[in-house]
Amino acid sequence: MSDSKYIDRYPFYVEPFHVDFTGRIFLGLRGNHLLNAAGNHSQRRGWGIGALNESRHTWVLSRLCIEMNEMPQQYEHCQVKTWVESVMKLFTNRNFSIHRADGTPLGYARSIWAMIDLETRRPCDLFSLYDGDILNYVVPEESADREGALCPIEGHGRFRFRDPKLVRTIDTYYSDVDINGHINSMKYIEHILDLFPRQRFEQQHIRRFEIAYKTEAYMGDRLSFYCQSVSADETDIEVRKNVTPSPDGGDGGEVVCQAKVLFR
Amino acid sequence: MSDSKYIDRYPFYVEPFHVDFTGRIFLGLRGNHLLNAAGNHSQRRGWGIGALNESRHTWVLSRLCIEMNEMPQQYEHCQVKTWVESVMKLFTNRNFSIHRADGTPLGYARSIWAMIDLETRRPCDLFSLYDGDILNYVVPEESADREGALCPIEGHGRFRFRDPKLVRTIDTYYSDVDINGHINSMKYIEHILDLFPRQRFEQQHIRRFEIAYKTEAYMGDRLSFYCQSVSADETDIEVRKNVTPSPDGGDGGEVVCQAKVLFR
Repeated sequence: MSDSKYIDRYPFYVEPFHVDFTGRIFLGLRGNHLLNAAGNHSQRRGWGIGALNESRHTWVLSRLCIEMNEMPQQYEHCQVKTWVESVMKLFTNRNFSIHRADGTPLGYARSIWAMIDLETRRPCDLFSLYDGDILNYVVPEESADREGALCPIEGHGRFRFRDPKLVRTIDTYYSDVDINGHINSMKYIEHILDLFPRQRFEQQHIRRFEIAYKTEAYMGDRLSFYCQSVSADETDIEVRKNVTPSPDGGDGGEVVCQAKVLFR
Repeated sequence: MSDSKYIDRYPFYVEPFHVDFTGRIFLGLRGNHLLNAAGNHSQRRGWGIGALNESRHTWVLSRLCIEMNEMPQQYEHCQVKTWVESVMKLFTNRNFSIHRADGTPLGYARSIWAMIDLETRRPCDLFSLYDGDILNYVVPEESADREGALCPIEGHGRFRFRDPKLVRTIDTYYSDVDINGHINSMKYIEHILDLFPRQRFEQQHIRRFEIAYKTEAYMGDRLSFYCQSVSADETDIEVRKNVTPSPDGGDGGEVVCQAKVLFR
């Protein structure tokens, strides 16, 4: 549903099989709702995957951070609002707000996307593609307030891994991959949250989750999860693929993504 | 949406993040749509989980089999029809048909449910609960045709495990459990299909999937998957929990569920 030239609003319903043992929606599934909203919003403006594939381009999610005051619960009717905050040469910033059906805000999200050329797999210049048409969909700063395009959460942070500890290694299978044969970006969130013990979710909620995607992994790749505790409530996680420990202390693995989980 | 006193119809949309690398919906997610339809159908007739919890009862899925001629693809609009085929003292048979939005049938499913007492965890007599009200919702045989309550697939088969081979053992985590703290019944489907290699899904489709749930497993339980090849296209799988091999050849594990996967 279009609110304006800039903003769309999409309803979602929290199905009983989409909630965790505390009755709140799984963060990875929440992420799906955001990506769907993003996909529809682009599609309606001629920048969707379908249109882009014809011109041999596609969107790639580079970063995502989600901050929730409250997680929607089983049987709740909610909505996602999304808009483009800004466009740089190689990236766009797309924001989201998540609301109850009655409009009460539940949380916010920020994301960064690159557009790549399907052949070279390299990022494209967004200002030159379609004569910079995408700039028409950036919410003008002076009307953000009136448009309700507000995302009052901190931007994406930086990761500094000093001596993270390897905590789990998993193989990847059929259910992990998306239509492109890549490990599904939301599946990483699932595997990362699976690193935490039951008590964590019994006693606390996730306040903020950040993830930065570095390179693709494929079905059959082996993923290793390295954790670093920043404080009692904050953990940084680095995911590397196909790690092979070597005598010089290196591991030969390639960084797939980095994430931060902040419990409240 | 109610078609009649007996039958409901629920729309669903195949989201881009719900499809596998061949572009077809994941079977476990398809299963979710069936369970949602079942839940809503019961709820509308006063037999939903909410109403039952007040009377200290709940539905438990005992068996499910799904047979698909064609799997819905990304961006397709489809619908599930569901109805109660029959009621026995301790079980109900609930059927489903899955259609494109234009009515073309894509496949069918059968399920068996027990109602248990939340305190004793034992099955209840469905004929005595609410004075046997549930019998009012069974589609009369003579009008099944007129009502479109047709499910032309074989019933649930029997499993005969002779010498299945242990092929994988996994730990279970946060993302595996549902609101009751049990391993989510659809997550078993995901883990079972993950036993098959990529080529299988490249070359074949799943024609029929059957699963029989025997006992609950919980977050932290270790699941072992035993496979037995019935023919080139047919594999039986037994899932046992917390297996500990013992010198006498036994494994001390308890059977959690049994499944059959038939590729076409």
